[in-house]
Amino acid sequence: MRLLLLQLILLTLFVLPSVAQKHPICYNTSEDYALIKKELPTNSMLNQSFFDIKKSVDALIGKDIDVPVPKDLAGGYTHERHKENYTIMFNASLLYQITGEKKYAELVKGLFFKYAKLNPTLKDHPQPSVSNAGHLFFQALNDANWLIYTGLAYDGIHNYLTPEERKTIEDGAFKPEVDHFTIDLAPWFGWIHNHAVWATAAVGIVGIATDNKEYLDMALYGKNKDSKTGFLANIDGLLSPDGYYTEGPYYTRYAILPFYLFANALRNYKPELKVFNRRDNVLQKALINSLQQTNLKGQFYSYNDALKEKTFACNEIIEAADMAWNVFGADTSLLAIARLQKRITLSRGGAKIGSLLSKDENSNKFYTYKPIEFTDGAKGDEGGISIMRSGKDENQVSLIYKYTSHGLSHGHFDKLNINLYDGKREVLTDYGTVRYISIEQKSGGKYLKEANSYAKQTIAHNTLVVDEKSDYNGDEEESQKHHPTKLFSNVSTSKVQVVCAEDDSAYEGVKMKRSVYMINLPNHNKPLVVDVFNALSAEQHQYDLPFQYTGILMSTNYKYSPFLTTQTTLGKKNGYQYLWKEAEATVQNHPFSQFTFLDTKAFYTISSLTDDSTKIFFTRIGANDPNFNLRHEPAYILRKKGTNQSFVNVIEMHGIYDANGEKSTDAYSLVKNIELIQNDADYSVVNITFDNKPLLVIQRNRNFDSNAANAVTVKGKSYNFKGNYTVLYDEKTVKN
Amino acid sequence: MRLLLLQLILLTLFVLPSVAQKHPICYNTSEDYALIKKELPTNSMLNQSFFDIKKSVDALIGKDIDVPVPKDLAGGYTHERHKENYTIMFNASLLYQITGEKKYAELVKGLFFKYAKLNPTLKDHPQPSVSNAGHLFFQALNDANWLIYTGLAYDGIHNYLTPEERKTIEDGAFKPEVDHFTIDLAPWFGWIHNHAVWATAAVGIVGIATDNKEYLDMALYGKNKDSKTGFLANIDGLLSPDGYYTEGPYYTRYAILPFYLFANALRNYKPELKVFNRRDNVLQKALINSLQQTNLKGQFYSYNDALKEKTFACNEIIEAADMAWNVFGADTSLLAIARLQKRITLSRGGAKIGSLLSKDENSNKFYTYKPIEFTDGAKGDEGGISIMRSGKDENQVSLIYKYTSHGLSHGHFDKLNINLYDGKREVLTDYGTVRYISIEQKSGGKYLKEANSYAKQTIAHNTLVVDEKSDYNGDEEESQKHHPTKLFSNVSTSKVQVVCAEDDSAYEGVKMKRSVYMINLPNHNKPLVVDVFNALSAEQHQYDLPFQYTGILMSTNYKYSPFLTTQTTLGKKNGYQYLWKEAEATVQNHPFSQFTFLDTKAFYTISSLTDDSTKIFFTRIGANDPNFNLRHEPAYILRKKGTNQSFVNVIEMHGIYDANGEKSTDAYSLVKNIELIQNDADYSVVNITFDNKPLLVIQRNRNFDSNAANAVTVKGKSYNFKGNYTVLYDEKTVKN
Repeated sequence: MRLLLLQLILLTLFVLPSVAQKHPICYNTSEDYALIKKELPTNSMLNQSFFDIKKSVDALIGKDIDVPVPKDLAGGYTHERHKENYTIMFNASLLYQITGEKKYAELVKGLFFKYAKLNPTLKDHPQPSVSNAGHLFFQALNDANWLIYTGLAYDGIHNYLTPEERKTIEDGAFKPEVDHFTIDLAPWFGWIHNHAVWATAAVGIVGIATDNKEYLDMALYGKNKDSKTGFLANIDGLLSPDGYYTEGPYYTRYAILPFYLFANALRNYKPELKVFNRRDNVLQKALINSLQQTNLKGQFYSYNDALKEKTFACNEIIEAADMAWNVFGADTSLLAIARLQKRITLSRGGAKIGSLLSKDENSNKFYTYKPIEFTDGAKGDEGGISIMRSGKDENQVSLIYKYTSHGLSHGHFDKLNINLYDGKREVLTDYGTVRYISIEQKSGGKYLKEANSYAKQTIAHNTLVVDEKSDYNGDEEESQKHHPTKLFSNVSTSKVQVVCAEDDSAYEGVKMKRSVYMINLPNHNKPLVVDVFNALSAEQHQYDLPFQYTGILMSTNYKYSPFLTTQTTLGKKNGYQYLWKEAEATVQNHPFSQFTFLDTKAFYTISSLTDDSTKIFFTRIGANDPNFNLRHEPAYILRKKGTNQSFVNVIEMHGIYDANGEKSTDAYSLVKNIELIQNDADYSVVNITFDNKPLLVIQRNRNFDSNAANAVTVKGKSYNFKGNYTVLYDEKTVKN
Repeated sequence: MRLLLLQLILLTLFVLPSVAQKHPICYNTSEDYALIKKELPTNSMLNQSFFDIKKSVDALIGKDIDVPVPKDLAGGYTHERHKENYTIMFNASLLYQITGEKKYAELVKGLFFKYAKLNPTLKDHPQPSVSNAGHLFFQALNDANWLIYTGLAYDGIHNYLTPEERKTIEDGAFKPEVDHFTIDLAPWFGWIHNHAVWATAAVGIVGIATDNKEYLDMALYGKNKDSKTGFLANIDGLLSPDGYYTEGPYYTRYAILPFYLFANALRNYKPELKVFNRRDNVLQKALINSLQQTNLKGQFYSYNDALKEKTFACNEIIEAADMAWNVFGADTSLLAIARLQKRITLSRGGAKIGSLLSKDENSNKFYTYKPIEFTDGAKGDEGGISIMRSGKDENQVSLIYKYTSHGLSHGHFDKLNINLYDGKREVLTDYGTVRYISIEQKSGGKYLKEANSYAKQTIAHNTLVVDEKSDYNGDEEESQKHHPTKLFSNVSTSKVQVVCAEDDSAYEGVKMKRSVYMINLPNHNKPLVVDVFNALSAEQHQYDLPFQYTGILMSTNYKYSPFLTTQTTLGKKNGYQYLWKEAEATVQNHPFSQFTFLDTKAFYTISSLTDDSTKIFFTRIGANDPNFNLRHEPAYILRKKGTNQSFVNVIEMHGIYDANGEKSTDAYSLVKNIELIQNDADYSVVNITFDNKPLLVIQRNRNFDSNAANAVTVKGKSYNFKGNYTVLYDEKTVKN
């Protein structure tokens, strides 16, 4: 009997641990912690991160931390408390591993016990989200956040707990949440969508932390384990081969955290899965994709349902960048990001970045932005997005041209949209979404009504609106079935970048083709943007091309009628009802119309080819907004009528306004005329008079081929060129 | 004969030079230059300044610099060219003195010769300013700028020139300008006004530079040399004893440059005048005054005709700060300014600041702002301005309470106005003026029509408007005769700061009294502002109290009617015609009205005592602005009717909105009620329910005396206190 007991003890001590999983393993391994402990005294940034976390957790040691019955929306007490709690639990588990001090493990355990009591009693949140209600939070997505962080926290104190304690927590705190996800919300758990990335990563991390193979398998391969859904199916289905995530960079940022956290846990736990290397390192590409789609303030491009305030100095990208350094090796362009993030994680990658940053005071000020293109769709065949770029650092100009698929529920009706940044200034803007995160008075941070009724509509963008309707008449399901087609592009050169794409599904019977050129001319420090937007239709239509801009009107070269004492709206629906009409103009006999505005420190001119059908509107957002949810931003709208119509616009960035230094330079446009000389199935020929010299843009319109030979006669003169386009300034080819 | 000739030569060589003035003397002396030369190799900031200037001048060496016939307004070619020329001439003269290289002296001389040809041919500028036309520029003020800098430049190359060359320049370039000022524009030259500071300093500097006693005497003592006008009379007449300049800080900044440049030249040339020590160092006080009236971005407070973009990182303040260091001795608070200026002058003071800055990385980030009061008027008896301040550095809250005299032609009708900053955010704003400096399309940078018709009007401010008219019915001359009276104040303590002032001249038959308290309560990191505004009149009036704010509406505690599809203006004149009415509300049976808005990162609530006569308007600037000159900013306007009326408002700064971190805290106001318990000739008693506890403000209303004994019964309870006010929170006196 005694011998048997001894055998049992030996078995428990030596055999079981080697069969059961080692912990910690989810976030850091013991070896990672050993490295962190070793570096702490000499790595000042790591040390700072450690003490920041320690300070926040120490303030709570010995206090009775509330685990309230869920009640409030985001911004309200119970929501924020539970959010705070999972952060504390995760951080305390890190401190326990680093310091070995029991008080941290006790804090985590104490909170887990409270959740183990609370969670089994919970049903759907009393103010549930429309689609998928959570238990602790109004939407299950937030519960997934909770589950991921508490899963990591549990892994961190796993070995501190007795088997009984583990059972209490696993059954009480975790199982009700996992069951809610995988049973109550089984369809949601099976989505290919950022929510499902969160949900599967959460169940998977808890699976590893609690040594629960069933959880882990459901997470990886879907509830039915057929690999049609689940975490891996999301990696395969959500990202394009070059890492573009169909909801856009704001949501890439959000999805990247569960992607990386679970992939990292799997790297420790099941290295043979090689999740980080899946699809030729597509998770690395996703990070690069999201960073390339930020502006010079670090803000993610605001197309689709984005909030402009969000920068890469957010927890998600800090985690992902630090892990990427560890997993994929050194990438010095991440140091510029890390410097602006001002924080590293307590991890192997964080430690490395921290030690390099403290030595590397003179590295790049900005991320290494470059002209770049991304395809959309899991196979990369559903359109895409191109970013043309010129100039360096503060003087960088970026033009985003979007011809992606819809972008799921967070997509906008913005086919063939453009968006322009000049340095830190967003000159041609994208509204983003209408939402005030975590502010209870604004529906607790939910997407507000105007997010759909205004911000998603085509008129809220910088692309063509036909007959005052949005693309696909605002039908998201229909929009999701289609995508534009890129016809040709070249963003690889410094002198002329070009992207040409077309769409024939957004408006029935209308084919839209937009060609955007970014042209750098000698002796001009800013590029010129030439935008040729053709609409072809057999029927009469009204075509509106809006430019949402930031700034104050300086001058026009035509007369307009301002609405001085009464204002009404531009239209009644599809987003038009939100626009006050501030002025309007007809420009008969005036084929060349210019609008110059000042944005803080620089001048911008939109020069337009206009015809007798053209009406121009100056509008401002703000009508029909009873709760004052919208920002009151201006737009410049060109309206033309006809069957086939063409918009040729030149967007010029010029001059400097230095109010402090009391100087302004080059406040006038150098564009003096625009001619559309030819525009047919074969060629489009645009002649712009710029700085008193002709700027000729010739574009091939069919059988696109970068080797095609072309001979075009313009004004009696013959031009031969190879490929899909050529640009000549003062009769000389603008060579790349 | 030979002996005689020799004697003559000796006389010329030795006697005359010792009688004639030494040069250079106006900007730097030879000793100053020797010090600069010595420090250049080791003082990196000085070196940087030197090379910046050298680079800009070297680019022009050997080029034929244009001196065009004047034609354009500010922003236009000829204006900007002449401006550029005087800067180049001044800088080249510095380089000549530092390097001894002739090419710099030649550049200056060459330009002087061109001006010596041009200037005698000039009459009034073809697009003259309304009042005082210049020759080289549209307004004589710009000619004064030219004359100062060319005077300094001339002094710098004086010894390089032959007597004939000097005569050519003095007669050709200078005399026509000096004659224009002192003969054609004699009344203007005799003003007590910033223009006259420029004009007299210009003539005086040229006087010293050209050894012309007549010029110098006219400059110092006025054209008639009776000391009633001239530079010294301007020092005595424009500045209050504590250095407040009646046009406000934006113009103090402008006037300070000629004050300092000429005073500095006089310090070298006639040290016995002790100009810098005149009136107990009033020029030093003026600099401190202007710096204390900047916000955390370094921008001058924008009351009166100010441009918001202007910061202390401008040439005027750089010059003044560097000279002040040299003249008045070390003032380390100037180092924070200099760090933000990022530039020092090539002067003794500049060299000293440069050397300290490079050693002093850890000095204060911000200027040493403090609660402070300034009187207005040459004798300090024409009202004044108080700045209440709480908190440190980024968390500093500043409330500006203005009860000055009108402020000459740049003053606004803003009696008893307040303006609030929370850190870098201007929460309750002052529009400033309407002007786009140097932008030709916007009337060449002139004050635009809306500067008078909107920005100057009372409704554009945060103070009471009676019967939709501006103070003094918008009559500047009348306004200039009066000023409000400060009744009592205390800004010397940290817990309760208070300023109480009254005015009985702005509106006939109406006495206005505003008492503003800034109260710091325990456990609240931002102060509460309590604003009691009484209007006393025997007649019925309509009283509007507007709050111009920055931000987006979050919530109100009452219902309002938004104007959703049509907007009209709030009124027809006196600035009201520029305001679109976005919403209105009546608040019958609702004596406590709250309006919460979000300004980027923080929440603000205006809690108001309202009565059945109260109407509330949400407005936005933009109507009747055909040229789009105005920014479209919102206001919150409380309207009451009656004979005597009281506005009691609590302005509360609360919470944090961190969209990037997805958190919002304390988005709700803690003010739950406001009662005006007593408000008569003896006392005003306000009871505010704040954070569920009573905040009682008791104010004595006559025989103000900081030692007066008071016994006031409030709700049956007796309160005894000494002085003009007491504040109790939760029945305990808020002690200082």
